[in-house]
Amino acid sequence: MIDRLSANIAIMEPKDGLREKLALSNKESRPLIVKLGFDPTAPNLHLGHAVVLKKLRDFQEAGHRIVIIIGDFTASIGDPTGRNKMRPPLSVQEIDANSATYISQLDLVVDTKRMEIRRNSDWLGKLDLREVIKIISKVTVAQILQREDFRQRFKSELPIHVHEILYPILQGYDSVMINADIELGGTDQLFNNLMGRALQQAYGMQAQAVITSPLLIGLDGTDKMSKTGTNSIWLKDTPENMYGKIMSLPDNLIPDYLSLVTDFDAAEHAELRDALGRQINPMIVKKKIAANVVAQFHSQEAAQQAAAHFERTVQRRDPEHSDHAPLAIGKLRESFPAGSPSLVALCDFATTDMSRSEIRRLIRGGGVRVDREKITDENAKIDIGPGRTLWVGKRSKFIIVDDQR
Amino acid sequence: MIDRLSANIAIMEPKDGLREKLALSNKESRPLIVKLGFDPTAPNLHLGHAVVLKKLRDFQEAGHRIVIIIGDFTASIGDPTGRNKMRPPLSVQEIDANSATYISQLDLVVDTKRMEIRRNSDWLGKLDLREVIKIISKVTVAQILQREDFRQRFKSELPIHVHEILYPILQGYDSVMINADIELGGTDQLFNNLMGRALQQAYGMQAQAVITSPLLIGLDGTDKMSKTGTNSIWLKDTPENMYGKIMSLPDNLIPDYLSLVTDFDAAEHAELRDALGRQINPMIVKKKIAANVVAQFHSQEAAQQAAAHFERTVQRRDPEHSDHAPLAIGKLRESFPAGSPSLVALCDFATTDMSRSEIRRLIRGGGVRVDREKITDENAKIDIGPGRTLWVGKRSKFIIVDDQR
Repeated sequence: MIDRLSANIAIMEPKDGLREKLALSNKESRPLIVKLGFDPTAPNLHLGHAVVLKKLRDFQEAGHRIVIIIGDFTASIGDPTGRNKMRPPLSVQEIDANSATYISQLDLVVDTKRMEIRRNSDWLGKLDLREVIKIISKVTVAQILQREDFRQRFKSELPIHVHEILYPILQGYDSVMINADIELGGTDQLFNNLMGRALQQAYGMQAQAVITSPLLIGLDGTDKMSKTGTNSIWLKDTPENMYGKIMSLPDNLIPDYLSLVTDFDAAEHAELRDALGRQINPMIVKKKIAANVVAQFHSQEAAQQAAAHFERTVQRRDPEHSDHAPLAIGKLRESFPAGSPSLVALCDFATTDMSRSEIRRLIRGGGVRVDREKITDENAKIDIGPGRTLWVGKRSKFIIVDDQR
Repeated sequence: MIDRLSANIAIMEPKDGLREKLALSNKESRPLIVKLGFDPTAPNLHLGHAVVLKKLRDFQEAGHRIVIIIGDFTASIGDPTGRNKMRPPLSVQEIDANSATYISQLDLVVDTKRMEIRRNSDWLGKLDLREVIKIISKVTVAQILQREDFRQRFKSELPIHVHEILYPILQGYDSVMINADIELGGTDQLFNNLMGRALQQAYGMQAQAVITSPLLIGLDGTDKMSKTGTNSIWLKDTPENMYGKIMSLPDNLIPDYLSLVTDFDAAEHAELRDALGRQINPMIVKKKIAANVVAQFHSQEAAQQAAAHFERTVQRRDPEHSDHAPLAIGKLRESFPAGSPSLVALCDFATTDMSRSEIRRLIRGGGVRVDREKITDENAKIDIGPGRTLWVGKRSKFIIVDDQR
């Protein structure tokens, strides 16, 4: 099991921390307490989170105790300077809703029935100034300013507000309160999680091992997948979306995705890695990765359907119409159960940015074509069939595709 | 009155703060709230404190409201790192005792019946982490690291613990809580007191003016008078001690002491300053300063007696015996009411570092002389009279002086 536990680790502190903790678990005949923190300001999980969550699941499956810390305390304060628009204070209701969403999405990877959930307001909300001073006296300003973003801001003379330097300490105090043996997180959490080690040591406890997972680069091919950005593949994306997004990844990310988010067995994994090495069309490997990922978060069947959908709507489209957005015939039939819709209704279905009256004006003005033929009668009935094209104005072109074959 | 209020100010922030606040007082027809903080870790006041306290009295006499803040909150925490031996946590009893001593010594300068005393534990002791975060978010790390001692330590890579940077903020919060218009202090308090301005502004209040008094250099002629050091003249020193200590000051400090701690009227003050300029023997001016200071903290009569004592014991001693320590005949007579003491008793009275058996050995060995004559009988009766000398061993020489003339 140590093989699986030690896979995909970016940085571990101390270097031999995992082995030491597993030995401790053996020696004391007890499961390890494995901590993962969650900031309830944005509930939805993406594939980047899944990298860490899969590690969490590995510990869970190895019989260890998983403790999720919901950082509701600081979320309920937000950024009191009002400087950080990303951190408005959240209401209890928002925190509860975000936490519920988070837990339900966690369930896609780990067994949420076999884990503990703690809210750090349980202890942080009860601290008075006297206790706060005792906690923060364990840490020096220089230690805190080692954090990369603080160091940069300090160097560039950008303000760091005093409460900000408390946050990593408080997060470290969570590890003291739950007696964490191991804390998981992305490499961007390394500093905060090492603070947990420092505080546990200052409190005379055994320091947790900090295990960080590599950060997954997002759809843009440059930035890490972000909970607020547009470069993310969400765990709750539809099978079609998830599959399509993975297919759209820059080729250079394929090895990372293969390692970090698939669950191929060792033989399959090696084979695919081999294939990449042999300069085979990367599309083939990408499809296997996409199907594997969709199967993990949805089902094997959903993965097959998503693959078929992708082939129909993206791959099989004739080159002539590659700039046409697809209109799926199945959905059209659903929307117009009575049969052929009017031209205005069809345009209304296809476009997302025009009112019916704008569409009517455009049709009357000769701006709409079906199969390249201008039609100025807004009430003309249009037969819907695969391959027919619809042009609405100069820029919006559609093609009806058969997604039901 | 503004003349007196504006005397002896080292640094004022803002530059025209005093005038502005007095105008405010006039406009709103209300007394100003004048804050002075007290750290109850060491209760005794020295002449350096008196410089600030005299300023406080001037505000009191001008009808303003004096608020003394006893910093009992942080004193009861001490330095939780245990790094600072000067700051062990104090018990409530110690804080109460120190505060009582402080108030009774304040009474030597200000009218303690017409002032408010607040303990900052009243508000700081009630803060929870949520409120603490709101307060400290008003301040940046860079602002705090501007404090000279922090800047030095940060530069030299000496640890600054995170709680330490909270203390100036909390002290500033005291100004918010009492709505201070003016905060007094020594120049060493400038940074902390400016923090009060910053916090009041952040809370949308009118910022206090910060008025700092020059620091008084102590007996060593180099360092500021310190509450823990050995270079201080204590307000509770006996008249003789206080007078003698002032007489022992290096001459270059005379102008400072004349300005900062005497209460001569303008004409006398100018005359003495003149005298210093005319290179008259500084001893003459020093005596007037010493008498003036003793009269302030004791009485006119005590000042006269202290001056006479000084002349008798220090000045009138013949040059031949200038290296002899004085034994006051009054005290000798008190100690030996039956009359002439034995030689061993006299030596025991005079020395502070020898046991009776050591003295006996020394006498028997011929190491003790009275009026230069060796006496080896330890039980010899000695007549005590002014001018008689006693040598105990090679280094300890005494002369009996008449302090009762």
